[in-house]
Amino acid sequence: MTEEGVKSDRDNALFEAGIKLGALYHQFIGTPVSIETVEMIEKAIESSVSLQPWVDSVEVCIDRKKVREIENQFKYCELNGEMLDVKVAILYGTVEVHARVKYEAGMGYPLMRVEKITEV
Amino acid sequence: MTEEGVKSDRDNALFEAGIKLGALYHQFIGTPVSIETVEMIEKAIESSVSLQPWVDSVEVCIDRKKVREIENQFKYCELNGEMLDVKVAILYGTVEVHARVKYEAGMGYPLMRVEKITEV
Amino acid sequence: MTEEGVKSDRDNALFEAGIKLGALYHQFIGTPVSIETVEMIEKAIESSVSLQPWVDSVEVCIDRKKVREIENQFKYCELNGEMLDVKVAILYGTVEVHARVKYEAGMGYPLMRVEKITEV
Amino acid sequence: MTEEGVKSDRDNALFEAGIKLGALYHQFIGTPVSIETVEMIEKAIESSVSLQPWVDSVEVCIDRKKVREIENQFKYCELNGEMLDVKVAILYGTVEVHARVKYEAGMGYPLMRVEKITEV
Repeated sequence: MTEEGVKSDRDNALFEAGIKLGALYHQFIGTPVSIETVEMIEKAIESSVSLQPWVDSVEVCIDRKKVREIENQFKYCELNGEMLDVKVAILYGTVEVHARVKYEAGMGYPLMRVEKITEV
Repeated sequence: MTEEGVKSDRDNALFEAGIKLGALYHQFIGTPVSIETVEMIEKAIESSVSLQPWVDSVEVCIDRKKVREIENQFKYCELNGEMLDVKVAILYGTVEVHARVKYEAGMGYPLMRVEKITEV
Repeated sequence: MTEEGVKSDRDNALFEAGIKLGALYHQFIGTPVSIETVEMIEKAIESSVSLQPWVDSVEVCIDRKKVREIENQFKYCELNGEMLDVKVAILYGTVEVHARVKYEAGMGYPLMRVEKITEV
Repeated sequence: MTEEGVKSDRDNALFEAGIKLGALYHQFIGTPVSIETVEMIEKAIESSVSLQPWVDSVEVCIDRKKVREIENQFKYCELNGEMLDVKVAILYGTVEVHARVKYEAGMGYPLMRVEKITEV
């Protein structure tokens, strides 16, 4: 058993990476978006995630093709998990965790996953 | 009694104004924001509201003073109802409704109100 | 032109009806839900909408068939606009407005609409 | 450097714990709540978190005293980070992580933290 006092940088980096993905997903899903505003929404999500502790970088990509496919008669749609691809790098002490949320069509699920863990 | 078929432009404009205020408030409350990102978040909210039907104009103002007051040790805070001031103009047919959500300190409440109804 | 002072009960009821639909939609979209929890989520949405001013009644129905269709390997899905059907009755002074948000497959859109306006 | 293939149960449990806390916080903040509905909202949050993969238990406590303090003239308030206390236990393989989000008045911040990591 490991009490809080002996959590490693790696432990903390992984926990923080999870927080960021869970938070941004449930904050921004549902936001109205169109081809014209998609870049601004990407930047807004990036800037809001960047503020949070231990975020080293964040890259948001919203799938323009899916925005076009599901846009309604008013030429916009709601941001959903199928069109969102976000990569976050968390640096905690000496450990960097690269995590990502991206829709997996086969699973029908916006999978949150750790892509790489690096000692720096 | 009035069935849907005989709703007036005024009726529709008021209903749509309410939708926009309720929607943006519950979409964006909780978003991380700082003095550095506040302008980008204002623009992102404006652009997402502007996409919606019958929106003629929208103006978002986030109170920098309140952002500073409640920012945490990491120099950001969550967007909340005390710092948000949004004016929306809805044009439906010949009627324009100017509505607003703004915190009323005396009521402890982000009051949504209609400020003006105009025949155009 | 009509200033705030001369808004009618009808005006206010329509504006408030819009607020409630916009708010609940953007608050609850994205919530994890399954066949087992769907009734509890319906009740939670109803109870939270009921608290708001001038709400006379609210009835939330989440489409079980759609929940089943899109549930993932973990047997749940996110609440989305295709499965949500909410009827709200707003009573302001002498006017009751019955409004609803329900997905319209033909429009690809969770349409918010006024179904009835009654003098009481 | 450690690629995805060699993540440990501990790594995964910590990442998943972070996801759950970030997600629930940004999903439910802003929900209207009163003394009468607070228990139902606690149960709804618990049931929605419980659906997610690797959640062993979840316990939501909303501070009644704070609800009363900030309730408005209509006798409700919005759920915010100051009144929310959530404990989640994530079981991934042989590792259990106990995590929590709870407001820390001294930090002015709803701190998400790992309270215990156990080999089972």
